[in-house]
Amino acid sequence: MERIVMKFGGTSVANPEKIAHAAQLVVGEVKRGKKVAVIVSAMGKTTDELLALANEVNPNAGRRELDMLLTTGEQVTASLLAMAIAAEGVEAKSFTGWQAGVTTEAIHGNARIEQVRAERIISTLEEDAVAVITGFQGIDAQGQLTTLGRGGSDTSAVAIAIAIDAAVCDIYTDVEGVFTTDPRLIEQARKLEEISYDEMLEIANLGAGVLHPRAVEFAKNHQMPLRVRPAHIEGEGTIIKEEIDLENNLIVRGVAFERDIVRSTVMYDTPYNGSLANIFTTLAKHHVNVDIIVQTIREDSQPSVSFSIKKQDFAEVVKVLEMNQEALGYRQVDFEVGLAKVSIVGSGMVSNPGVAATMFDAMRNASVPIKMVSTSEIKVSVVIPESDMEKAVTVLHEQYELAGE
Amino acid sequence: MERIVMKFGGTSVANPEKIAHAAQLVVGEVKRGKKVAVIVSAMGKTTDELLALANEVNPNAGRRELDMLLTTGEQVTASLLAMAIAAEGVEAKSFTGWQAGVTTEAIHGNARIEQVRAERIISTLEEDAVAVITGFQGIDAQGQLTTLGRGGSDTSAVAIAIAIDAAVCDIYTDVEGVFTTDPRLIEQARKLEEISYDEMLEIANLGAGVLHPRAVEFAKNHQMPLRVRPAHIEGEGTIIKEEIDLENNLIVRGVAFERDIVRSTVMYDTPYNGSLANIFTTLAKHHVNVDIIVQTIREDSQPSVSFSIKKQDFAEVVKVLEMNQEALGYRQVDFEVGLAKVSIVGSGMVSNPGVAATMFDAMRNASVPIKMVSTSEIKVSVVIPESDMEKAVTVLHEQYELAGE
Repeated sequence: MERIVMKFGGTSVANPEKIAHAAQLVVGEVKRGKKVAVIVSAMGKTTDELLALANEVNPNAGRRELDMLLTTGEQVTASLLAMAIAAEGVEAKSFTGWQAGVTTEAIHGNARIEQVRAERIISTLEEDAVAVITGFQGIDAQGQLTTLGRGGSDTSAVAIAIAIDAAVCDIYTDVEGVFTTDPRLIEQARKLEEISYDEMLEIANLGAGVLHPRAVEFAKNHQMPLRVRPAHIEGEGTIIKEEIDLENNLIVRGVAFERDIVRSTVMYDTPYNGSLANIFTTLAKHHVNVDIIVQTIREDSQPSVSFSIKKQDFAEVVKVLEMNQEALGYRQVDFEVGLAKVSIVGSGMVSNPGVAATMFDAMRNASVPIKMVSTSEIKVSVVIPESDMEKAVTVLHEQYELAGE
Repeated sequence: MERIVMKFGGTSVANPEKIAHAAQLVVGEVKRGKKVAVIVSAMGKTTDELLALANEVNPNAGRRELDMLLTTGEQVTASLLAMAIAAEGVEAKSFTGWQAGVTTEAIHGNARIEQVRAERIISTLEEDAVAVITGFQGIDAQGQLTTLGRGGSDTSAVAIAIAIDAAVCDIYTDVEGVFTTDPRLIEQARKLEEISYDEMLEIANLGAGVLHPRAVEFAKNHQMPLRVRPAHIEGEGTIIKEEIDLENNLIVRGVAFERDIVRSTVMYDTPYNGSLANIFTTLAKHHVNVDIIVQTIREDSQPSVSFSIKKQDFAEVVKVLEMNQEALGYRQVDFEVGLAKVSIVGSGMVSNPGVAATMFDAMRNASVPIKMVSTSEIKVSVVIPESDMEKAVTVLHEQYELAGE
C-alpha cells in the first residue's frame, strides 16, 4: 500500500478542535488505503510562549537549553494528535524526532538533518498504525536534542517522506495552495494546480511563506512530490514537482512582491580596488541579508554599488557602514526608502528571452519607475516605489494572463 | 568533591520567580563546593493542564500517548532551571530521563526504574556543570518514554543519587521538614531533626505526603540519606537515615492522623468457610484500598469481619459488596462513618512493649472510644470518632512529650 506524509503546521493544530479536525483528515487518508506518517509543529503560539518563559528566567539563555525547551512543543502536539486519531478508531503512535531516527548536525537552533533511520516509523506503518512525528527536531551524535531552525517542520516532513519512500508529502496549511499572486492584494489571483520545484523555490525565497525554501530544495534533490493543501477546507491544493504539465506551462507562472525595501548606494572616490566586495563580507558578518546588488564600474566615472535590504535591517546597515567607513574606503552612502520588489517567476522564461523586456515595457506603460533590476533563469525582479506596487502587480498579472480563462 | 542531589517538586518551580529562587539554592550549594545533580517535577499545575488537553481530544487516551504528553512537563522545567542557573553564572545542562540513563520497565504510567546508567550525568558533574534532570520519567528497552506514576520524581531523585554515589539526596518542598504531628492542627508540633527510614515509611504511608513511600523504601534499601528541606525559607529540614541519634531516640517520634475513615462490618450466618478472604480479593479487583482489618472468629458466635476504608471509596465498596452478596455469602453489612485514624510512630517501640497500652490508657482517660486497633513493630493505629481526633492527637502529643523542652 502507498505511504504518504501529511504535515500540519502550528495554525492547523492550534487548539483541541483543530487537532480533532487534523485527525479526521488523517483518518480520511487511512480509509482511502494509505499508510500515513504525520509530521506536526507546535500548537499555535506555543513556541512564542515557551520563549517568553525562557526570557523571564534568562534573557541570554543558551541554544542547547532553548532546544530542550522548544522541542517539548511538538511533542505535546504529536501525542495529542495521536490520541485524537485513536479517538476516531485508528491506531496511532507518536514519536519524538530522535525516536523517529532523525539525526542532525551538532548545532543547536539551526541544525541540518544528516540522516533519517526510519526503521521504527516503517515498522509502525506496516503494523497499520499511523506514526505521528514531531517536526523541527532531531538528535545529534552526542545524544543532544537539536532543532532545525525556521521552516524546520517542512524540512522534517520532506526528509521523512524520502526516508519512508512516500508517494507524496502533503503540507497542510491555512491557505488554499500556491497562487499566481497574493489573493489578498489581487482579487483575480488564481490558485495554481502545479508548479515546478524551481518556480516554488523562487516564490518561497520571495517570502510567500507557504513553504520553506530549504524544504523545497530538499524535495527537488530527491524528486519527492510536494503538495500544499488547505487544512481548513476541502481542496487539492497545489502540487510541486519537477516536470509540470505543458498545457499549463505558462511563460510566467506567478507575480510575487515584497514591501519595505530600502536601496543603499555606496559611492567611492577612488577607482575600484577590491573594497566593493568587502562591503558584503562586512554586512554578512553582521547577519544583514542583502538581496539585489547592482555594481557600476565605468572607466569614465567613480565607482558605486547599490544593494537592496529589508527595512528591518536598515538601522543595522547604517551603523555597520558608519563604523567601517575607513576600512571600506568609501566616500558617501545614500539610502532610498519606501520601495518594494515585484518579481515575475516562471520556468518558461528560459526559452523566452523577451520576458524581461515585456515586463519593463509594462512598467513604463504604467508609469512605474524601475530603481533596480535583477534577473535569473526563471525570475525577473524589479525594485519600484512601494506606492506603485499594487498597480505594478495588477498590470503584470494581466499582462501574463495569470487569471486564466 | 562531594556530589549531592537536589530535588524540587512542582510547587517549588511553579513560576519563573520560583525557578529563579531554586536556581539560587543550587548555586549556593555549588559555591559551597558541591557537585550538584538536580531533579525537577513539572511546573505547578502543568500536569493537570496537559491532562485536561488530552481529555478534550480523547477522554480515553492510551497510557503510551499520555506518557509522551506528560513527560514534556518536566522537560520544560529542567531546561528553564538550567537557564536560570546559567543566568547566575554557573554552567548547567538539562537532561531528559532517557538522556540521564534512567531505564524502566515497559509499563506506561506506573513504571518502576530498572537501572540508571549515570555516565553522562557523572561526566557533566566532573566538568563542573550542574546537571538538571527531569524527574518522574525514563525509557523502556524498546525506546518508549515511560512515567513512574505518583511520587515518581522523589523516586527518580533517590535512584539518581544512588547511581552517582551522592552524599545526600535533598528533597525540597513547601514544608519546613517532618514534624511530630501536623503543625496546622497542633500548635506544639515540633520539627524533627532526624527520623529513621522505617519511621518515615510509616509516616509516608499514613498520608503525610511529604515523601513518597516508594522513594523512602528505595533510599533505605541503598542506605542513601534523604533530607526533607524547605525551598521557600532557610532551614536544614529533617534528615532521614538508618541510625538516628540515640539522645533524640524517643520511643514515639510522631503522631499521624487521617480523616474521613469509614468502618465496614460484614457479618456471616454460617461459620467461617474461606469467604472472609474472598471479600478482600473482590475489593482489590475494584481498586479499593483497605487499611485496618479486624476479623472476629469465635466458636460461640457468628463470624464477622471489620475493615476501614477511605470515604472516597465508600460508594464503590457499597456497590461491590451488594453486587457480590451471593458469591461472598454474607448475611449483612454495616457501615460506620465519621471516623478518623490516629497513629503513633517510633522505632523505639520495638523495645518498649508497653507503648500500645499507654496509648489506650490515654484514650480512655480522654474518653475517646477506640473502634479499631492495628499495630506494627514501630506503629500503633487506632480508629476513633473524627470529632475526637484533635483531642486525641493533642493528648498523645503531650503524653509522649513530643513538643520538646
